[in-house]
Amino acid sequence: MALTPRFVTPDSRDGPDFSICALVRSQEKYDRLLASFLRGGFTAENSEFLAADNRAFNRFDGYGWQKALLAEARGRFVVFCHDDIELLDAGYTDLLAALDDLDGRQPDWLLAGVAGGRYRPQKHHRRFLRMRISDPWGEDRQMGEVPGRVETLDECFILMRRTRPVIGSYDLRGFHFYGADLCLQAELLGGSAHVIDFHLRHHGGGTKDATFEQAREAFIAKYRAVFPGRSLHCTTGVVTFPEAEPPKTA
Amino acid sequence: MALTPRFVTPDSRDGPDFSICALVRSQEKYDRLLASFLRGGFTAENSEFLAADNRAFNRFDGYGWQKALLAEARGRFVVFCHDDIELLDAGYTDLLAALDDLDGRQPDWLLAGVAGGRYRPQKHHRRFLRMRISDPWGEDRQMGEVPGRVETLDECFILMRRTRPVIGSYDLRGFHFYGADLCLQAELLGGSAHVIDFHLRHHGGGTKDATFEQAREAFIAKYRAVFPGRSLHCTTGVVTFPEAEPPKTA
Repeated sequence: MALTPRFVTPDSRDGPDFSICALVRSQEKYDRLLASFLRGGFTAENSEFLAADNRAFNRFDGYGWQKALLAEARGRFVVFCHDDIELLDAGYTDLLAALDDLDGRQPDWLLAGVAGGRYRPQKHHRRFLRMRISDPWGEDRQMGEVPGRVETLDECFILMRRTRPVIGSYDLRGFHFYGADLCLQAELLGGSAHVIDFHLRHHGGGTKDATFEQAREAFIAKYRAVFPGRSLHCTTGVVTFPEAEPPKTA
Repeated sequence: MALTPRFVTPDSRDGPDFSICALVRSQEKYDRLLASFLRGGFTAENSEFLAADNRAFNRFDGYGWQKALLAEARGRFVVFCHDDIELLDAGYTDLLAALDDLDGRQPDWLLAGVAGGRYRPQKHHRRFLRMRISDPWGEDRQMGEVPGRVETLDECFILMRRTRPVIGSYDLRGFHFYGADLCLQAELLGGSAHVIDFHLRHHGGGTKDATFEQAREAFIAKYRAVFPGRSLHCTTGVVTFPEAEPPKTA
């Protein structure tokens, strides 16, 4: 018996165009998501659908589910979304076109989403978001120029290429800040995150439960040494990392 | 027609135990590698063998080949190795045992290898390596305590879990420092890198060609802001990141 290796080249390609990975708590919401993807031209041929099963209880947290599903994904693009999104008029061909456009404008892109904070890697008190989305706060809301670079992404919809992935932190837990964490890890890898023009509906409004402040503290404790003095604007609010040193006095 | 999603849980398991991924320049050396894995108890049932095809020319660089093969890998553990290694007495069951031991001692481990610099995340001029290896410099060389934590890993053999991957930088190129880069990215993800006791032979001695200094400069330029004042000891030498500020004078 001999071992039969498989040789891989940069052009090797298998799998569908998209792996649509969802964090599923509610079967009802997920059915709505699936129906909207089907209407939008996503099929069993061009896409695979993977679900992180949190229906009975939280088997996965925000930092864990993307890793587990990325390890299973076979698509050229891997979408990570919440179960409470619903596609609108934009579908399969629009998403491919938006990504093709991004490829052309920003070849170093690693992450794409639909809402986030505009990229300003210093300290900024004013909140400048970038998005095109329909959600409980409005229909077809547009902020900032879209497409454009961001420093954070809302977790409701984040996409990466399977052969150019970004991994979230292993030392953070819970359901908050994992979109921002992913964007910072993308920066540390030498790439960038972007909001693209792919209008969808997010039925949820984001929840700030009792764990939010705790998650924010852990997030700051982790990144303050790497990004001292920087503030990050998220769709859920701002995070500011302390300066490395006390300000100089005259 | 409806879409049929696949639900994933943290216990979902598929694929073989190992994906043995090699960067292959020489078919002859790779055949020697494969024969040694077969002798060591790695089979087509418990392992898959993937090769980044650099036989005709360099289709992949050091930073690119691991990403391309990770995207194809299906094994629980993914090994990235050079084509010029050869297993000795330690085989399949020894590797599983060494990883089981590492799991018990250091659950946050992300990377395992056979040679690297002992973990000392500050400035150190003295070189303290950690390894157990046979190579052109000696038979069964042992330095430092093995197993143990490291700050860098030699690229001849690096292993990770498929569901807990580490991705190398997208803004560095070439064939140097990509093991050290992977270890720094593992730290930034909140995990650690380790040398394990898995004695193998590395027929190559590492080459410092004309691109080495250039690669070192790019590596320093990238990480000096993140790890100011730190030195990293690699099997190929030391790298020191400048201090963030000029030293204070009296």
